[in-house]
Amino acid sequence: MKKVGIVMGSDSDRDVAKKAVDILKELEVPYEVHVYSAHRTPSEAAEFAKHAKENGFGALICIAGMAAHLGGVMAAYTTLPVVGVPVRSAGLGGLDALLATVQMPSGIPVATVAVDGAANAALLCCEMFALGDPELSAKLEARRESGRAKVLEKNARIEEEFN
Amino acid sequence: MKKVGIVMGSDSDRDVAKKAVDILKELEVPYEVHVYSAHRTPSEAAEFAKHAKENGFGALICIAGMAAHLGGVMAAYTTLPVVGVPVRSAGLGGLDALLATVQMPSGIPVATVAVDGAANAALLCCEMFALGDPELSAKLEARRESGRAKVLEKNARIEEEFN
Amino acid sequence: MKKVGIVMGSDSDRDVAKKAVDILKELEVPYEVHVYSAHRTPSEAAEFAKHAKENGFGALICIAGMAAHLGGVMAAYTTLPVVGVPVRSAGLGGLDALLATVQMPSGIPVATVAVDGAANAALLCCEMFALGDPELSAKLEARRESGRAKVLEKNARIEEEFN
Amino acid sequence: MKKVGIVMGSDSDRDVAKKAVDILKELEVPYEVHVYSAHRTPSEAAEFAKHAKENGFGALICIAGMAAHLGGVMAAYTTLPVVGVPVRSAGLGGLDALLATVQMPSGIPVATVAVDGAANAALLCCEMFALGDPELSAKLEARRESGRAKVLEKNARIEEEFN
Amino acid sequence: MKKVGIVMGSDSDRDVAKKAVDILKELEVPYEVHVYSAHRTPSEAAEFAKHAKENGFGALICIAGMAAHLGGVMAAYTTLPVVGVPVRSAGLGGLDALLATVQMPSGIPVATVAVDGAANAALLCCEMFALGDPELSAKLEARRESGRAKVLEKNARIEEEFN
Amino acid sequence: MKKVGIVMGSDSDRDVAKKAVDILKELEVPYEVHVYSAHRTPSEAAEFAKHAKENGFGALICIAGMAAHLGGVMAAYTTLPVVGVPVRSAGLGGLDALLATVQMPSGIPVATVAVDGAANAALLCCEMFALGDPELSAKLEARRESGRAKVLEKNARIEEEFN
Amino acid sequence: MKKVGIVMGSDSDRDVAKKAVDILKELEVPYEVHVYSAHRTPSEAAEFAKHAKENGFGALICIAGMAAHLGGVMAAYTTLPVVGVPVRSAGLGGLDALLATVQMPSGIPVATVAVDGAANAALLCCEMFALGDPELSAKLEARRESGRAKVLEKNARIEEEFN
Amino acid sequence: MKKVGIVMGSDSDRDVAKKAVDILKELEVPYEVHVYSAHRTPSEAAEFAKHAKENGFGALICIAGMAAHLGGVMAAYTTLPVVGVPVRSAGLGGLDALLATVQMPSGIPVATVAVDGAANAALLCCEMFALGDPELSAKLEARRESGRAKVLEKNARIEEEFN
Repeated sequence: MKKVGIVMGSDSDRDVAKKAVDILKELEVPYEVHVYSAHRTPSEAAEFAKHAKENGFGALICIAGMAAHLGGVMAAYTTLPVVGVPVRSAGLGGLDALLATVQMPSGIPVATVAVDGAANAALLCCEMFALGDPELSAKLEARRESGRAKVLEKNARIEEEFN
Repeated sequence: MKKVGIVMGSDSDRDVAKKAVDILKELEVPYEVHVYSAHRTPSEAAEFAKHAKENGFGALICIAGMAAHLGGVMAAYTTLPVVGVPVRSAGLGGLDALLATVQMPSGIPVATVAVDGAANAALLCCEMFALGDPELSAKLEARRESGRAKVLEKNARIEEEFN
Repeated sequence: MKKVGIVMGSDSDRDVAKKAVDILKELEVPYEVHVYSAHRTPSEAAEFAKHAKENGFGALICIAGMAAHLGGVMAAYTTLPVVGVPVRSAGLGGLDALLATVQMPSGIPVATVAVDGAANAALLCCEMFALGDPELSAKLEARRESGRAKVLEKNARIEEEFN
Repeated sequence: MKKVGIVMGSDSDRDVAKKAVDILKELEVPYEVHVYSAHRTPSEAAEFAKHAKENGFGALICIAGMAAHLGGVMAAYTTLPVVGVPVRSAGLGGLDALLATVQMPSGIPVATVAVDGAANAALLCCEMFALGDPELSAKLEARRESGRAKVLEKNARIEEEFN
Repeated sequence: MKKVGIVMGSDSDRDVAKKAVDILKELEVPYEVHVYSAHRTPSEAAEFAKHAKENGFGALICIAGMAAHLGGVMAAYTTLPVVGVPVRSAGLGGLDALLATVQMPSGIPVATVAVDGAANAALLCCEMFALGDPELSAKLEARRESGRAKVLEKNARIEEEFN
Repeated sequence: MKKVGIVMGSDSDRDVAKKAVDILKELEVPYEVHVYSAHRTPSEAAEFAKHAKENGFGALICIAGMAAHLGGVMAAYTTLPVVGVPVRSAGLGGLDALLATVQMPSGIPVATVAVDGAANAALLCCEMFALGDPELSAKLEARRESGRAKVLEKNARIEEEFN
Repeated sequence: MKKVGIVMGSDSDRDVAKKAVDILKELEVPYEVHVYSAHRTPSEAAEFAKHAKENGFGALICIAGMAAHLGGVMAAYTTLPVVGVPVRSAGLGGLDALLATVQMPSGIPVATVAVDGAANAALLCCEMFALGDPELSAKLEARRESGRAKVLEKNARIEEEFN
Repeated sequence: MKKVGIVMGSDSDRDVAKKAVDILKELEVPYEVHVYSAHRTPSEAAEFAKHAKENGFGALICIAGMAAHLGGVMAAYTTLPVVGVPVRSAGLGGLDALLATVQMPSGIPVATVAVDGAANAALLCCEMFALGDPELSAKLEARRESGRAKVLEKNARIEEEFN
């Protein structure tokens, strides 16, 4: 199976990245985690993206805050789907990273998820991979079902408490 | 090949949807266009999403403005990748639709693109389909190359004008 | 008397929901509390809204954060008045939930209150019920009067302290 | 039947108010339209709200822009449900009126709808009145059904055009 | 000398109000502090403003958060200068109170200062009173001079530390 | 009588300044209009403010857009009341000018009015001058009364049209 | 003398770039104009930046809108000063480009000017070059002086009109 | 070598200023640190800027929060490059200081960096000085290289941990 490449712009984004890792482990989708800064290691970031397809990646998750260019830089060098995770920072609350990630010009898409939403970024990659993988598709359906069940359980508990 | 389902929340989003259609035509990816409102036809929207997989769809593009729930509603009923296109409206400039589309809770991702960015939504779907389709992958690479060439041409013209 | 249905999108919204419960208890208006996620349990949420009228509900309070679709989803399935309470989250401070709740398209209203303003959501439901219930109307007037008295008391204390 | 009181803060809000009037006419709910400014005619605004209940009103719609206080001022003088319609102005795009309308303190709710969303304000009032009026309730259901049908028609036309 | 009326919308604004009190004490300008809520005690707030001139007030400071209407309500009932202090609240960071205070319609001004800027509100009132009071004017000049001196002292300390 | 100094940062603000001039003419308050840029003519701006008191000014109105520093610069050089009018510009809609005008540090107030709200700036100056001028105070009261009458007239016309 | 490199992300930014060109012509500072997209021609953009120093450039001006990464990408490949000009786009008014340009991580600065502020970007480059060029420094001083004179002229005209 | 002038508007900005000092120490660029408030010591701030060139400064870093005018005031009095550092404050998260710093009118540039981004402000000054100082230029290149190395190290550690 193709791998998901999880790239964070700084190791301070580690905890956000962890949420993507947990999903991929759970769904048994192979992945690699890297730290490449769009600004401090631009060549390495570009090289990684340029060779991602031939290196067995099927999608990239780019996690970055502030003027979050990592998704855009990666997307510029590959036609693999790139998912951008804007990271919340003090002050502007992640609005800076969100706009810097999502407002891509026509031709070079970055699939953007919520601020700090790395779990959804991983799920999105799984949904893409599942297009050609019925087993993974079934796992996703099961995960949805179990998510549904968890809410209903909580509902039961809340109903008991309040009603 | 699987189809892309393009759903707009209102036929006033037609011109935005057209941008996605143009890309898919160009890249010869099959598609269907529909109007389903998350709020005025919630059952039809839900039904469409629920049966999208078995009806041959591989990804959905949801185009909506204001409290743009269409992407979220569709994503809630399918594990196909759902791409959300926030539509600009008067007043709040699309910030409302952007936040309503991108800030999805953990478990139900919507891959969000720029305000009015339906062309990129279509490209994103193609990138996903290309994971299992080397021919489409090659078309995407060629499109990138031609995009690059167009910029260099413009560069040549601008260099001539200014330098 | 008709019941108020309090629905939260996640049990993490419990403390906000509690503020609505307290008001309804105080004013002796019947209520039920539930957890239904617009995205994780969309069918249950839809079913709840669809049958709310016949199940004795007179109004629904929908409490949700981020891309807060719960109010819109419920409103899509019922013509009961739906009151939306946007919940504050880290980062965007509730602006995301506020815009996702209030900016509903023409035809499907969601009566929106302040970020985390569940007490006012409950009062709004009481004001609606009071249209056909003079006793409840009197209770609301009395509550206003006592709110007024409390401010005047505080005024007295502050005047004593400062003047 | 009780009347809906439509109050605009300035006659420049006339076109927004017209959208509420059209709904109420369509649904045969009695209404009155007034111009009272929270700031230029505060006593008249207060008097109107104070006597609204005894004058046969069942709900008030307050339409105002900028530092939109009209809803709050009316709500302060009545326990009738007050619906606030923030009006878009140049520059800040209605965000000023939205926040000034929706962020009411605990105890005095204003049911806020979208920027310029007067049609939904009127529908909200009808939903409230319908709690005690099965005929009006049926009209609202029929209106929803017809809204649904209109979307499906548009869908048919768009499907024909694109598919 | 005329008094400054300091009105807070809630006694939770006490610490902000204290900053105004401290300035007025320092400059020996008489003042009164009150709690009147624009929404919970609208008549008392209106009465206070209506009679402020005859009761010896020369300016009013209105301190309020969220949908901060207090300044606007007071200004509607008096032609005394009204200074508005928007109060920061969780979530929207005071942007709600700022816009609700400053965006007054033509005809009814509210002189707005920074979020939580009650000290400046008091200084503004002193500047107004000083127009007819050379002694107060001299005190304000002296205060400026001493503010200048304090900065220069800090400068000296910082220069020593760093240079 | 003391004069109001109306200073615009650029002659492109002329139409906004005109609104202040009209009010002052109407109320027969003397004024002077100038163009001084905080950034292009900082010394002239400073000199104007420094000598404003001795030159017969009683208050300054500073009209500026973008990084609107004019009010702050003037306020730094005088203890006369300074009223700031943020001017709307393309793009950021005046939010830049509003925040740059209103968020003054403790010690140096700028009384800020709405974006483009120069009429209110002039009225504010008149309210200040009226503290020592009963005739002007009476004019302000009369103006309020006539403003009230105009709204009631409009109300009459609207009532006739709609009710 | 070193050249200023003016790079726009798209030839639709031509009119903004023209404002920088006009300044550099006026001050006789050599320049080159190019179109390189951070996303469509990432290698060319990177190559340009990487060799800018050896190719005789002394500073780069990067003009881009939306998720404006051009300044950041260039800055990542050179230690020449990079000046970023955020370009206004429909909808978000340039706030997206501003945040995407200015919020650079520590280590890789982009000197950001106002939305569409390409004239100031050029002046900034001239100020940098003037550090080692007394003649250019004198030209800048003269330009300031003439800017000052222009404002004073406008002041004279406005004074004549209004006073 | 020319000095960098670091000016903070208040000694509460000391920790932000420290980040600039650390960079300049590291790169052995001379500097001076001062506290001058644009509003509390406007003459001292103006004098400092006016004589900065003759006093051996080559660039100024202006650190200020809220209605951050310091950069603009300094830039108005010198044609040295002025770098503005907006400081985050409670409530508006630094958006106020950012807009007040960056949105300078044409003719008077302030090179703006990220909120609290004083390290980048110092690097920007070094980049400017390096235009005429090959040794400093080499240090900047080396610093970039070492920044790159640090990211790669972190990458190695993260790869070890996750892959």
